[in-house]
Amino acid sequence: MAAFRVLVASRLAATPAFAPRPGLRLLPLGGWAPSPRAALHASAPRPGARVALVLSGCGVYDGTELHEASAILVHLSRGGAKVQIFAPDVPQMHVVDHSKGQPSEGETRNVLAESARIARGKIADLARLSAADHDAVIFPGGFGAAKNLLCCIAPVLAAKVLRGVEVTVGHEQEEGGKWPHAGTAEVIKALGAKHRVAEVTISFPQPPHVDRRNKVVTTPAFMCDTELHLVHDGLGAMVREVLELAGH
Amino acid sequence: MAAFRVLVASRLAATPAFAPRPGLRLLPLGGWAPSPRAALHASAPRPGARVALVLSGCGVYDGTELHEASAILVHLSRGGAKVQIFAPDVPQMHVVDHSKGQPSEGETRNVLAESARIARGKIADLARLSAADHDAVIFPGGFGAAKNLLCCIAPVLAAKVLRGVEVTVGHEQEEGGKWPHAGTAEVIKALGAKHRVAEVTISFPQPPHVDRRNKVVTTPAFMCDTELHLVHDGLGAMVREVLELAGH
Repeated sequence: MAAFRVLVASRLAATPAFAPRPGLRLLPLGGWAPSPRAALHASAPRPGARVALVLSGCGVYDGTELHEASAILVHLSRGGAKVQIFAPDVPQMHVVDHSKGQPSEGETRNVLAESARIARGKIADLARLSAADHDAVIFPGGFGAAKNLLCCIAPVLAAKVLRGVEVTVGHEQEEGGKWPHAGTAEVIKALGAKHRVAEVTISFPQPPHVDRRNKVVTTPAFMCDTELHLVHDGLGAMVREVLELAGH
Repeated sequence: MAAFRVLVASRLAATPAFAPRPGLRLLPLGGWAPSPRAALHASAPRPGARVALVLSGCGVYDGTELHEASAILVHLSRGGAKVQIFAPDVPQMHVVDHSKGQPSEGETRNVLAESARIARGKIADLARLSAADHDAVIFPGGFGAAKNLLCCIAPVLAAKVLRGVEVTVGHEQEEGGKWPHAGTAEVIKALGAKHRVAEVTISFPQPPHVDRRNKVVTTPAFMCDTELHLVHDGLGAMVREVLELAGH
């Protein structure tokens, strides 16, 4: 649900100016705190695609799946992209105790502050995102404008917004638990979009799905019950497609 | 500081039995929740090194640096390791608002529940860890027994416990901000350990440092102000050294 709120916020509140928050200060006590210069990618020396990454919290059950986000950032870094990270400055719709898989009653968290864990503090309010400033916008758990990269369950959101878009969330049958969310494909079709069956990594028969008309790249990622390095590699293939679409 | 509490807990409270918590249940509302079978590595089909990963929260300022943890898990997955994840079931010593880099007053969090975000729910109380059940114990922000893997600032803890151990936290001079925590090397030497200068990745002149007598592998990781994919690759080299020490 947080992902969908990202969509709404990005479409309604985008402003032309991007002004990232100031870098983090060293903490007086404990914790390992990098200097402002140590933040992710801010000092990347190579010119490259300008990519906005939009997060929606931290952790698979109530926010952005952090391994997906980390993999995307690793591959963007390897591809020389210049990344700016955003998240909506709103309360989380719900908070989950990840050790129990159940709602954490009475607890509130802020989406931007939680997303800042993944961003290592270098993050801006999503209201400041302007798609025109970027070659690609990445929503690991949501949807964006310009050239798109969508992974995991986010293709449902693309299907809701882009009429007739072609996306993939992997397989369409559960196959004994390997694809526990296979029913998502039916939701995508019910929304009038086309679903293409695909695998998680390029070592499987198919690469990530590319809808060139809508400039949407999709891959199943953790929609499949598989090993983490395969998810990591599949996201790498998707990032490379996006950077190619962005002309880099 | 959370990292040091991990150390104390692991040495005082280790028990011979490991009984992981039951898998997560699907949530009734919102969030993307995998089935119990979708948890990290639990169903890895290949036999391999038995590795315990000990986390101490989620996020660089008040817990385990999640990109380091994710990279370690990706490389362990690629190496066919069988991973079990632990964290101490204690309150965090402090909670930091990562978007501001400042303590979050009046907020409390549990180390195990926060670490479960990285572990995707498949996590056990650190009190149940027995080093004898594992070929290697990994503490991205702490210290462990058996064959060790230490990264980032954790080598300080090894220096405190293993007399004369050889470790690295990277360079010994700040070099204009590239190594903002270079002073850590002096702390290590003051504790009677040997510090070896090293780079972040194997594309630099040196591989991660291996102390074969104490079976400790160290690499600077985010001690250096560098790009994320170099940190990722450096941790990969370290994981490969650990798996080799573990006979895999």
